[in-house]
Amino acid sequence: MTANDFLLDARRDERLRLSEAIFCSGKSPAQIAAIIDHAEARGLSLLLTRLDEARLAGLPPQQRHALDYDAVSRTAIWGQPHPLGSETRVAIVTAGTSDVPVAREAARTLRFEGFGSEEIVDVGVAGLWRLLRRVEELQRFPVVIVAAGMDAALPSVVGGLVGGLVIAVPTSVGYGVAAGGQTALNAILASCAPGIVTVNIDNGYGAACAAIRALGGRPARQGDQHGTS
Amino acid sequence: MTANDFLLDARRDERLRLSEAIFCSGKSPAQIAAIIDHAEARGLSLLLTRLDEARLAGLPPQQRHALDYDAVSRTAIWGQPHPLGSETRVAIVTAGTSDVPVAREAARTLRFEGFGSEEIVDVGVAGLWRLLRRVEELQRFPVVIVAAGMDAALPSVVGGLVGGLVIAVPTSVGYGVAAGGQTALNAILASCAPGIVTVNIDNGYGAACAAIRALGGRPARQGDQHGTS
Amino acid sequence: MTANDFLLDARRDERLRLSEAIFCSGKSPAQIAAIIDHAEARGLSLLLTRLDEARLAGLPPQQRHALDYDAVSRTAIWGQPHPLGSETRVAIVTAGTSDVPVAREAARTLRFEGFGSEEIVDVGVAGLWRLLRRVEELQRFPVVIVAAGMDAALPSVVGGLVGGLVIAVPTSVGYGVAAGGQTALNAILASCAPGIVTVNIDNGYGAACAAIRALGGRPARQGDQHGTS
Amino acid sequence: MTANDFLLDARRDERLRLSEAIFCSGKSPAQIAAIIDHAEARGLSLLLTRLDEARLAGLPPQQRHALDYDAVSRTAIWGQPHPLGSETRVAIVTAGTSDVPVAREAARTLRFEGFGSEEIVDVGVAGLWRLLRRVEELQRFPVVIVAAGMDAALPSVVGGLVGGLVIAVPTSVGYGVAAGGQTALNAILASCAPGIVTVNIDNGYGAACAAIRALGGRPARQGDQHGTS
Amino acid sequence: MTANDFLLDARRDERLRLSEAIFCSGKSPAQIAAIIDHAEARGLSLLLTRLDEARLAGLPPQQRHALDYDAVSRTAIWGQPHPLGSETRVAIVTAGTSDVPVAREAARTLRFEGFGSEEIVDVGVAGLWRLLRRVEELQRFPVVIVAAGMDAALPSVVGGLVGGLVIAVPTSVGYGVAAGGQTALNAILASCAPGIVTVNIDNGYGAACAAIRALGGRPARQGDQHGTS
Amino acid sequence: MTANDFLLDARRDERLRLSEAIFCSGKSPAQIAAIIDHAEARGLSLLLTRLDEARLAGLPPQQRHALDYDAVSRTAIWGQPHPLGSETRVAIVTAGTSDVPVAREAARTLRFEGFGSEEIVDVGVAGLWRLLRRVEELQRFPVVIVAAGMDAALPSVVGGLVGGLVIAVPTSVGYGVAAGGQTALNAILASCAPGIVTVNIDNGYGAACAAIRALGGRPARQGDQHGTS
Amino acid sequence: MTANDFLLDARRDERLRLSEAIFCSGKSPAQIAAIIDHAEARGLSLLLTRLDEARLAGLPPQQRHALDYDAVSRTAIWGQPHPLGSETRVAIVTAGTSDVPVAREAARTLRFEGFGSEEIVDVGVAGLWRLLRRVEELQRFPVVIVAAGMDAALPSVVGGLVGGLVIAVPTSVGYGVAAGGQTALNAILASCAPGIVTVNIDNGYGAACAAIRALGGRPARQGDQHGTS
Amino acid sequence: MTANDFLLDARRDERLRLSEAIFCSGKSPAQIAAIIDHAEARGLSLLLTRLDEARLAGLPPQQRHALDYDAVSRTAIWGQPHPLGSETRVAIVTAGTSDVPVAREAARTLRFEGFGSEEIVDVGVAGLWRLLRRVEELQRFPVVIVAAGMDAALPSVVGGLVGGLVIAVPTSVGYGVAAGGQTALNAILASCAPGIVTVNIDNGYGAACAAIRALGGRPARQGDQHGTS
Repeated sequence: MTANDFLLDARRDERLRLSEAIFCSGKSPAQIAAIIDHAEARGLSLLLTRLDEARLAGLPPQQRHALDYDAVSRTAIWGQPHPLGSETRVAIVTAGTSDVPVAREAARTLRFEGFGSEEIVDVGVAGLWRLLRRVEELQRFPVVIVAAGMDAALPSVVGGLVGGLVIAVPTSVGYGVAAGGQTALNAILASCAPGIVTVNIDNGYGAACAAIRALGGRPARQGDQHGTS
Repeated sequence: MTANDFLLDARRDERLRLSEAIFCSGKSPAQIAAIIDHAEARGLSLLLTRLDEARLAGLPPQQRHALDYDAVSRTAIWGQPHPLGSETRVAIVTAGTSDVPVAREAARTLRFEGFGSEEIVDVGVAGLWRLLRRVEELQRFPVVIVAAGMDAALPSVVGGLVGGLVIAVPTSVGYGVAAGGQTALNAILASCAPGIVTVNIDNGYGAACAAIRALGGRPARQGDQHGTS
Repeated sequence: MTANDFLLDARRDERLRLSEAIFCSGKSPAQIAAIIDHAEARGLSLLLTRLDEARLAGLPPQQRHALDYDAVSRTAIWGQPHPLGSETRVAIVTAGTSDVPVAREAARTLRFEGFGSEEIVDVGVAGLWRLLRRVEELQRFPVVIVAAGMDAALPSVVGGLVGGLVIAVPTSVGYGVAAGGQTALNAILASCAPGIVTVNIDNGYGAACAAIRALGGRPARQGDQHGTS
Repeated sequence: MTANDFLLDARRDERLRLSEAIFCSGKSPAQIAAIIDHAEARGLSLLLTRLDEARLAGLPPQQRHALDYDAVSRTAIWGQPHPLGSETRVAIVTAGTSDVPVAREAARTLRFEGFGSEEIVDVGVAGLWRLLRRVEELQRFPVVIVAAGMDAALPSVVGGLVGGLVIAVPTSVGYGVAAGGQTALNAILASCAPGIVTVNIDNGYGAACAAIRALGGRPARQGDQHGTS
Repeated sequence: MTANDFLLDARRDERLRLSEAIFCSGKSPAQIAAIIDHAEARGLSLLLTRLDEARLAGLPPQQRHALDYDAVSRTAIWGQPHPLGSETRVAIVTAGTSDVPVAREAARTLRFEGFGSEEIVDVGVAGLWRLLRRVEELQRFPVVIVAAGMDAALPSVVGGLVGGLVIAVPTSVGYGVAAGGQTALNAILASCAPGIVTVNIDNGYGAACAAIRALGGRPARQGDQHGTS
Repeated sequence: MTANDFLLDARRDERLRLSEAIFCSGKSPAQIAAIIDHAEARGLSLLLTRLDEARLAGLPPQQRHALDYDAVSRTAIWGQPHPLGSETRVAIVTAGTSDVPVAREAARTLRFEGFGSEEIVDVGVAGLWRLLRRVEELQRFPVVIVAAGMDAALPSVVGGLVGGLVIAVPTSVGYGVAAGGQTALNAILASCAPGIVTVNIDNGYGAACAAIRALGGRPARQGDQHGTS
Repeated sequence: MTANDFLLDARRDERLRLSEAIFCSGKSPAQIAAIIDHAEARGLSLLLTRLDEARLAGLPPQQRHALDYDAVSRTAIWGQPHPLGSETRVAIVTAGTSDVPVAREAARTLRFEGFGSEEIVDVGVAGLWRLLRRVEELQRFPVVIVAAGMDAALPSVVGGLVGGLVIAVPTSVGYGVAAGGQTALNAILASCAPGIVTVNIDNGYGAACAAIRALGGRPARQGDQHGTS
Repeated sequence: MTANDFLLDARRDERLRLSEAIFCSGKSPAQIAAIIDHAEARGLSLLLTRLDEARLAGLPPQQRHALDYDAVSRTAIWGQPHPLGSETRVAIVTAGTSDVPVAREAARTLRFEGFGSEEIVDVGVAGLWRLLRRVEELQRFPVVIVAAGMDAALPSVVGGLVGGLVIAVPTSVGYGVAAGGQTALNAILASCAPGIVTVNIDNGYGAACAAIRALGGRPARQGDQHGTS
């Protein structure tokens, strides 16, 4: 069960102008290694998400050392990311310190695809002044990603203050009724601010892909990377 | 099934310094009329909640006309409310127009028990400036009741701005994932603002009772009203 | 409880380049009429959503006749919509006939704000050929709104075929485990296609607002309309 | 608590033309060993499902070595499987690599009962071309098993393309709202494609049994295996 | 919003050897009438499901009178059903009287497609003798549809007694924790009997389609009916 | 769909020493009338539960007038109930006035089967003195049925004070998180008092049957009534 | 946090004729040891439930060795159980091998209180003949406890065959939609068999206590054991 | 990801007269250490909650030794708590031994902010006499915090007996339907006692903050501690 068990979507790049990422959490180290081998043989770059340290440790040493790994976001990049565009068009805002890993997954995905981003952390509404002093800055971005758990009041407040596309990412931060992010997700969907959109809980990767779609996609490049989900 | 079916808690007033209210929504007009008869015979005042217009119409005309009925909050007062105290110590804030019936139920309950209140409506966070210009005013109240549905981001923001007791009432306003107020309730419970408390969905009556408990209760009075739930 | 019960967000337009809409489903005809009066007195245009025929019938005749009402989407426009832009940049796709009211709410909101749209109906995946013959056409739109209920497989398929921003709107179409749109919503959020975003169940209005945000917002205009939620 | 705690359904084979399998996940190694002993004493073959490596390690060495164990599907066969029929009448399709263990459990169950199967992996709808090039092949099978997690859009698409019996198996692949397979299950049940059937989450064994039922059952054989659940 | 709002899947018959049915519950009488007009113009037969009496009354009289309507199952047939095959290969079993409408929807769908069926009613497990005396009869059918609500114990018992394909249809019969059929559905999915399959709550139509798929489909016929969902 | 749609469990009485009741809420007046006809032809007595006034009005006049109907509990008795035993061995306690219909259904079922009962109403724990003065009385009953909605704290308190069998019936009284009785049910199941048992929400009939089982059943009688569910 | 953290219900025995049990799963070894010390000092016997092997290992050796521990049910008895009554009046039936631990907890609780019981294992309805041959035997018991997980069809079948009090215990056996026993619980509550009662998931202790209540309680004894929950 | 990942709410103390606490459960030891460093550099005191022993062990030794750590409540205090006020105005009541950790978190929070409290443990309603003998004492406190899991009947009983502010904290104690505290929470919200308020499951910290708000807040002090969530 390795090489036979995956079939990369080799045509995604031309269709979507998005790279496929390898979502690692349901895969064995042997499967992940086989996919990297496949990419290496074809000269492809790859983004790996949800690669925890246990799975990383299970990869062959030469693969492990060649990866650009970030422990906070549990992402890894195999090969070269796309060249960075000149303008930073995405802001990433977090309600609290515990939301940073999700925000970082978005930032890493954006970077892999050639987009820079600006992170603004720990500006949850319990201390509203922290956000209010950044509003003018935020209003200049065409896309704002907001990662928030617990009651996720922050996306509603941001959505009422800035006119760009607001992509809220509910996070699994919290306990009890926070219910692994379900309350944050529902609060975002029921938001009183008009036109906020959202993605699955903790899905920083998806928020970044949506941002890229909204910004017109990534410029195509020959010999691009592919993946399997 | 009328007089045999209820047993008023005749000792509540002395124990709790709170009047029992008659929650009407599960009761037949005949049962409600029997309770009013019982109160009339003993010279008691009564607060009736969730008395919709259909049930009201089913009461005997002389009862119906003697009631002080408020259609917005669906509350009625039989007899005299308690004398109004001199100081207004409770503010009632609503996120939107649709939350007003719940806020009004709280205001009517407070008034019945002798407490005045100040209502501040339609200050939801999607237009944050509406709330921000009232903050100093709100900071002067020892108790602030906040009624909000949908994502209920308002209680979190209020709870981060004022130091008094914040009693949030989730309302059933909204659709889809708002789930009849469940999302608002969960968002309040998962709030990032410290020390916010809450009550059941749409329970303006309960919020008012909690406010009275926090303010040290109502001065006792002879021959007080009682009820059944 | 009419004029005192609402407070329009008079500054939304300048902040967000979006008009506030009046969400009518929790409001009484008297409240809605008061808001229209308020708009009329200030020369504002207004979009009213979730205005069912019963509420419409409860409005004063002169208001009722002056409204541009669409029964399918239950939307009404008071005054003039924004001038239509020259280019159609939004496609609206529906899985089945029953999803049309939600799609139409999006189309009406877009039109009110000055954006045209292209509707493509009844292309659910059970008869995949209906969608496949429209793919090239869809790939030319920067924003595609997809309304789908039941299993909501259509947004995943669309998201794998077009590279623009895909805003999926789950609808409450279906029965049993469809659960009023909750299954469609969850399927969209768990989609295997990268970067799909979503809004609350049946929220065609929100999808349209998100599209406008992604397209850079509406050009500001003097004396704009406002609303209350 | 070993030999006293189980009672094999010795008459299942004659009633159902299906062997009972031993579902191991709630049983101790001692209980499993006692059941194997019981089978050995009677010359029966046995299929064991959900036998994780920890439980396998807890079996007596002579049992452990005599088992035909497959780590991917966590199944083991004690004794001889039924002779393989000549025709392959079941296709097993998976949306992604992570769905393979469930598909393999179905394949192993089919093999144990004497049925061959054809596996087609990683053809999820996000890259639709992977499925479309296999449609004609799939249309030739009287039974198609489809294992899919996350949004489970694949069974709807397959169900709209092939006319045989489509048995969808929701898998627990995914995170957040995927909810351990509940969203996949609900999406399958709410499918817009007519006549798709389903089984419990991750229940590859059940899908295989249903396929056998639909194909008219397995030819009876003397001295067949039995089990306990 | 009539003729523009639907797009029949004209190719379903050739792909699936199944007719598309018109699911009426989310459609207006005007939409349904337009679809019937469309079928009439092309000489197609049509099956309409979930056609309640209010919608039926809203159809034009000439359509209404030409329909073969069954009030119990809320189904109607426009034009001629497929010719009845010679053999009855499907049994339909119900746990209680209240499950009959769902069973009848399955029987009507089968009949429309040219399949006869045998109904066995009110054999719920609380009076087990009623089922046990029919077991031998049931064992002769290659497909058994079982409709049951409440605790849905009947499909488990049937599944342990007969070897054919058992398609269980959970019904919304019951109250309290029965939860509109959710408990019946879950009990079926968690059944201890091997290889039982299921469909959405109250989905008699889907069970019939699955039976037809399992039986090898309906013989194709020229000029077949089509529909929209 | 009348006489063909039911099959009475004619052997229940001899097996269980319990009469089958006709649960009317999912049945049409025509079906109910056919069952009464069937009973009349055989000289059986019948208990009908959940017979609302609309269905009652749909019965033939001669049936309607011959029924002993109780509007509070929505039960009717056809023919003669069993002779009343000499001793009252069941107490029925209710937390509030709104729980009386459920309690009455239990009382009527007990009476039909020949058992008397003692009702003690409106002794919810918010006014604990009302219960405490009845404790000694309650301790003398071998079976105590407790009907309570909302938080259902009463069964826990009763279960800690009396040693007889406590059968708690959660009721659908309440709003918001009361969730149609689900919270009351869960609170009863999670009770800190040892050995409390429960039945479905609002199931006064089931509580009475359980009481009869615990009391050793009803003495058998020839020519007993039967029913269908 | 040891001796100060508990307060035994020293009067339970005289009120309820039931011993309090020590529910260990939320308590530290130090707390459990302090409670045993307290019992030892007063010469009390104690039943400990949910005492897993890790907590057992954390007790002082002299306590650990003096306990009568049963690993299957995770129960321990400190001191002497009540003397065994002469007649066995409770049967305990399990659907499968995995339900045995819950059944054993009931048996141990009964034994501690002086009641014998008869266990009948692995008679789930998938192989109905296993149960049917035991029916006459079961009909002789005044109380039958039935432990079943997954779909919990067994209690419905038993409840339709025996007239004694049927106490069903849902177990957490199963996966996917079995949902930790919630489906089994709901199926039991929605059972079509009349008068079945139930307790919390896996609560063998509670079922035993209910049986004792139904059997008239345990004869009082001086110097009885007490506990804390 | 340490110093960059947090932004303390330096102005909370002046706004709310409440200290911000550091909620540790989602933070790494490195993040917690950085926050303590930040506090040390500014001479601030800090309250840390949900600091389990694993995270504590991950702190630098000099920090670890300087903390005042309480293992039961998993709280730690860095620096000096606020000076203790002269009067004890808060009672903390627990239903069982397992609720003590939550109660202790409230007590520690109160102490940190300068408020004493009185703990009354293990007075759950199953042994009602334990509570009744403390009622007069409880009636003297202006604020009563009640921590209870399982069915949470205790807050309802307390709320019916004392007139002060009752802040109920549902705990995650229990199993099966207790559902991690959700049933306790819902029972509290649906309580029949008037004016009970609540907070998130296990949120002893929040209950203490609410108590402080109700008591008029803490006297301000220069150079106060701050935190991040």
